[in-house]
Amino acid sequence: MHTKEEVKRQMTEAVRRVRAGNPMVGSVTNTVTIQFVANAQLAVGGSAAMVYLPEEGEFLAAAGGAAYINVGTLLPVYAETLPRTAAMLHRLGKPWVLDPVAVGIGEMRSSLLRQLQEYKPSIIRGNASEIIALAGLWGLDGGADCSNVRGVDSRDSVEMAKPAAAALARHTNGAVAVSGKTDLITDGKIAAYSYGGSHFMERVTGCGCSLGGVAAVYAAAASPFIAALTASAVYNLAGKRAESKAQGPGSFYTRFLDELYIASPEEIAENPFELERV
Amino acid sequence: MHTKEEVKRQMTEAVRRVRAGNPMVGSVTNTVTIQFVANAQLAVGGSAAMVYLPEEGEFLAAAGGAAYINVGTLLPVYAETLPRTAAMLHRLGKPWVLDPVAVGIGEMRSSLLRQLQEYKPSIIRGNASEIIALAGLWGLDGGADCSNVRGVDSRDSVEMAKPAAAALARHTNGAVAVSGKTDLITDGKIAAYSYGGSHFMERVTGCGCSLGGVAAVYAAAASPFIAALTASAVYNLAGKRAESKAQGPGSFYTRFLDELYIASPEEIAENPFELERV
Amino acid sequence: MHTKEEVKRQMTEAVRRVRAGNPMVGSVTNTVTIQFVANAQLAVGGSAAMVYLPEEGEFLAAAGGAAYINVGTLLPVYAETLPRTAAMLHRLGKPWVLDPVAVGIGEMRSSLLRQLQEYKPSIIRGNASEIIALAGLWGLDGGADCSNVRGVDSRDSVEMAKPAAAALARHTNGAVAVSGKTDLITDGKIAAYSYGGSHFMERVTGCGCSLGGVAAVYAAAASPFIAALTASAVYNLAGKRAESKAQGPGSFYTRFLDELYIASPEEIAENPFELERV
Repeated sequence: MHTKEEVKRQMTEAVRRVRAGNPMVGSVTNTVTIQFVANAQLAVGGSAAMVYLPEEGEFLAAAGGAAYINVGTLLPVYAETLPRTAAMLHRLGKPWVLDPVAVGIGEMRSSLLRQLQEYKPSIIRGNASEIIALAGLWGLDGGADCSNVRGVDSRDSVEMAKPAAAALARHTNGAVAVSGKTDLITDGKIAAYSYGGSHFMERVTGCGCSLGGVAAVYAAAASPFIAALTASAVYNLAGKRAESKAQGPGSFYTRFLDELYIASPEEIAENPFELERV
Repeated sequence: MHTKEEVKRQMTEAVRRVRAGNPMVGSVTNTVTIQFVANAQLAVGGSAAMVYLPEEGEFLAAAGGAAYINVGTLLPVYAETLPRTAAMLHRLGKPWVLDPVAVGIGEMRSSLLRQLQEYKPSIIRGNASEIIALAGLWGLDGGADCSNVRGVDSRDSVEMAKPAAAALARHTNGAVAVSGKTDLITDGKIAAYSYGGSHFMERVTGCGCSLGGVAAVYAAAASPFIAALTASAVYNLAGKRAESKAQGPGSFYTRFLDELYIASPEEIAENPFELERV
Repeated sequence: MHTKEEVKRQMTEAVRRVRAGNPMVGSVTNTVTIQFVANAQLAVGGSAAMVYLPEEGEFLAAAGGAAYINVGTLLPVYAETLPRTAAMLHRLGKPWVLDPVAVGIGEMRSSLLRQLQEYKPSIIRGNASEIIALAGLWGLDGGADCSNVRGVDSRDSVEMAKPAAAALARHTNGAVAVSGKTDLITDGKIAAYSYGGSHFMERVTGCGCSLGGVAAVYAAAASPFIAALTASAVYNLAGKRAESKAQGPGSFYTRFLDELYIASPEEIAENPFELERV
């Protein structure tokens, strides 16, 4: 297991690399939060491009440093776009983040998420219910059926999703980030708990989606575990700072984007977290 | 007719119930303002989920406390999604809000709005031109052809739309909210005039759409008339307050979301309104 | 060649006409920045309507004072919507703006942009790489293949795109606006360099798209060259002003919309620019 100091060093390095290299990250993502995803990716130093068509998903998979796939608002064309984009990412060995938003709503969503299993996302990001349901859908330990998925909210605690998260991470040989009051990030061997954030993050749509998009940006410059932890850290730091200057969800959102931009590599690495063996 | 005090009591109760119960409201809505709709629904205490596919619309209709259908930016798949979602809502007796944005633009829009007539939306929200045109399309009193609909703007005054609004409300046995300088809300028996708002609400896209989305949130916790009136009240209150702190439409939007969140149940109920028999 | 004073007079007049006449501008545009486009169009005094369907694109082409077509996030239905909308605009002699976002990504994008050539957009707006690549795609002088197009970013300087911009403008008998650190606007005979802006404009998604949308608003009230120059001037002015009050991209975006709204016709015309013969 890496020491905490070594993890911090790698986080600092990931943030610096992104700001220096401005990696392009393609996304197929939902239309509710698509602007927030792009703005968050830009705020941390990445470059964003969003598409809907299969051939364009493949193009971005090949051209980008990493990619982000979010199943939030499915369109008919996604029946082709998502598998073809993920297949290309997998074939080229490009890191990519899967956000299994609202897994359990509708047959197409389940069918697509089943198909994506073989393309092994480098990072899976979701709330506790989604992580448990995805592990269930993929027949992994810690999984369960989708009965607790309620739209985009989560009824399960992050801790309850730990076995599912670890099983998913071992399956993909990547990392899983479970978003909650405290965030859990694991690669199946170590688990990190990242602290901070704000109650406003549940009152502004897209804090989860854009966290996934930002994790993809860092995945272009670091291992899946470091990328997911760095993304959670900057979100928890920016959320805490933004809350202290916000009067409500509108000013929180505005300030949150500012804080994503302002946070220094060292501050992000120093945002409180703990490591443990899984 | 209810007394004003009784109406205020029910409005206060609606706001409290929403904040305590966090009702999930599914939407099929336009892509221009979809983020604003979700953020407004979250700001007043609801939970938001947006979809495009027919089976997912049906799923949310069954799973949610209410729903919102906005025809602003039609996609081909809506030919199935809108009727099937509305049919499911009607069959299950779930409250739902129809926003007949830009009725009169294109054949598909007219065809879909004709089909939705039989599923009797609990609340119809639109500007004066849209309400008059929808009544015309549905063959009701007070209706007229669509010649005065100009994109998403309205040339008719709220008062001119009163007969159409009353006819629509009697037809659906629900409520109709006509947005304008003063808002008119009627259930066909009583009419409420809700005061406040801001000139900036015409300079920020989505104030109408998100008002419809917020009315759906309150419809999960109150009668259509009370839900529509409460939504108008919080919008007029938040708009007036936000304007006093805004330098332009950008800061107005930010502050408006803050004010939706901050407003207390009592303040919302006390926002100026008048009642009269229709 | 017009004198600088005459150009300023026409810019002032364009801004005044838009604020007085509130021209309706229809858009078929990308979903990432669609809300920003609408809000920017409203902030400068226009009226916005966005659609996806072919018949609705044609309707807005006929009903509006101008239109905006942005190929950023293509959907399958755009194979019909874009050519039919552009054909209608061309047939009716309506001014329209083409934003060839990410030209070079995918076959459908290239195919659509080839089809749009014959409908001669009044204004073409893009970054340097996009302008060069579009000229290449259309077989014009100064064009080149798409190898330097990197998602939505530009590697080429505005100056390098000058021959392509001039060739495009002569081909369409309209104007071309090349966005960069300094913006270049040309009608093939004169070139204007517009100064100002902010480094934050690359850290907020949609500053380019919404500039195109605003150019369409002014095109409803002025010649293509004056419309494109006026749009660049208000963007450079608002960007510079917003940066001085911003802590990061979130507050920059909010303040930027405010400044678009606040800027007076005279201030916009006085924003620094230079004219030269091409």
